[in-house]
Amino acid sequence: MQQGYARIRLDVSYDGTDFSGWAVQPQRRTVAGVLTEALDRAFGPAVAVGLTVAGRTDAGVHAVGQVCHLDVPVEMWAERADRLLRRLAGTLPRDVRVRSATRVPAEFDARFSATFRRYAYRVTDAPYGAEPLRRHDTLAWPRPLDLAALNAAAAQLVGEHDFAAYCRRKEHATTIRQITRLDWHRDDDLTLVGTVQADAFCQAMVRSLVGAMLFVGDGRRPDRWPGGLLTRRERSSEVTVAPPHGLTLIEVGYPADPADYATRATATRRLRLPTAL
Amino acid sequence: MQQGYARIRLDVSYDGTDFSGWAVQPQRRTVAGVLTEALDRAFGPAVAVGLTVAGRTDAGVHAVGQVCHLDVPVEMWAERADRLLRRLAGTLPRDVRVRSATRVPAEFDARFSATFRRYAYRVTDAPYGAEPLRRHDTLAWPRPLDLAALNAAAAQLVGEHDFAAYCRRKEHATTIRQITRLDWHRDDDLTLVGTVQADAFCQAMVRSLVGAMLFVGDGRRPDRWPGGLLTRRERSSEVTVAPPHGLTLIEVGYPADPADYATRATATRRLRLPTAL
Repeated sequence: MQQGYARIRLDVSYDGTDFSGWAVQPQRRTVAGVLTEALDRAFGPAVAVGLTVAGRTDAGVHAVGQVCHLDVPVEMWAERADRLLRRLAGTLPRDVRVRSATRVPAEFDARFSATFRRYAYRVTDAPYGAEPLRRHDTLAWPRPLDLAALNAAAAQLVGEHDFAAYCRRKEHATTIRQITRLDWHRDDDLTLVGTVQADAFCQAMVRSLVGAMLFVGDGRRPDRWPGGLLTRRERSSEVTVAPPHGLTLIEVGYPADPADYATRATATRRLRLPTAL
Repeated sequence: MQQGYARIRLDVSYDGTDFSGWAVQPQRRTVAGVLTEALDRAFGPAVAVGLTVAGRTDAGVHAVGQVCHLDVPVEMWAERADRLLRRLAGTLPRDVRVRSATRVPAEFDARFSATFRRYAYRVTDAPYGAEPLRRHDTLAWPRPLDLAALNAAAAQLVGEHDFAAYCRRKEHATTIRQITRLDWHRDDDLTLVGTVQADAFCQAMVRSLVGAMLFVGDGRRPDRWPGGLLTRRERSSEVTVAPPHGLTLIEVGYPADPADYATRATATRRLRLPTAL
């Protein structure tokens, strides 16, 4: 971080329906693009710098607990912090909201200080499809789903494994991740919610895991199948990636003690970016 | 009901955002219009007749528990009942769903046999506005709301009263209604939900009641004000009608014993349509 700057944490939520994902892309409407425009209006063009996000969600994926950081000149922050939330609420489109903006220690890194990410996947097996008011964040599955089968499949994926079968290939990047929670419950009579928490996920991993489990849930695969794929060393073509609109980033966790931000960030960088160190 | 017909009850839900309300209007997209088209495709043009709804929701109002009835030739019903839900799911747009279709006694009248209607109104006082994924059914209120004040105002509206101050005027129609439940709770940190149940509501009544209570909730009116308006014999211009998108029809109740459908319908007709009898 440059001298004279304050590090700011933003808590962000969005309806991913009309976004081509988080990351800025030319000619596309993205969350980072829209947010950068609003920040430029709030602080002046390119005054807020270094926007970094905890979870780069794919096109169509939603968030209620996304976290990012950026740096703003200290005096600018002192001047504008008070009215920032209302100001951003006024300029941002209604499908993205900044829920809070707080100054954090310079060591806080939205991406590398994170200790976990938790996602939820909503799917309904109602014969009539998704409830109209929840159709934007609920997948309609055309066959009945068995909760016990989903949970049996889920149980075998918990723990530290090489998730290569479930990851888009990326050069020199490890596909070893630690899933600390993966389970399903019925939210109401006809909606199932899968919750998955891990230290981090590789690209399309959550939707690949969900895709595999849904094939167990509707009886087309045995419940040992998703766990069995963990022996593969590369992406499995048998796994169908579940559609993005059922998926929502719920929470990103950070060390309780700010003194641990830097330690955690260094450890994560060593693990995820071995070639960069 | 014509001889040789079966009476069918449909349970319907919809996202009211893109509808000009329930009732068919020329050149407008309405729930009844879209539903009639789908029924015409399922049974043949104009084969299903007498579509009658429990609660004629206004433009922009949602429903998860709307009920209507219609009549279909008995042999047609016997033939097509099995696949009707999947068929309607395939032809209806995604913002309206038929959750169930069941044959009921000929005495069942979706409108007049109903014993209660229950609505919920969602409003947030978060400084950043409505959560993106719930922005279609949650009103963003720009001032902090006090839950105790809302409930104090609500308590005075419960019971049988003349709600003329809260009703759009209609010739020869009574504005006496019985509210059996009206209360507010916090759904999460930043969303308040008002629940109101009555035997029936006159037009715009729920949104007028909510509009009055919100002015108490944010401190601009004393909590005795909404109850005080019950002495008025005509619509009060001081009451601001709350926007439609926060409102959802949750449930319509009917007598537990089908033998009471007809009795209830006769009693309701006598009360609501005195000039028609």
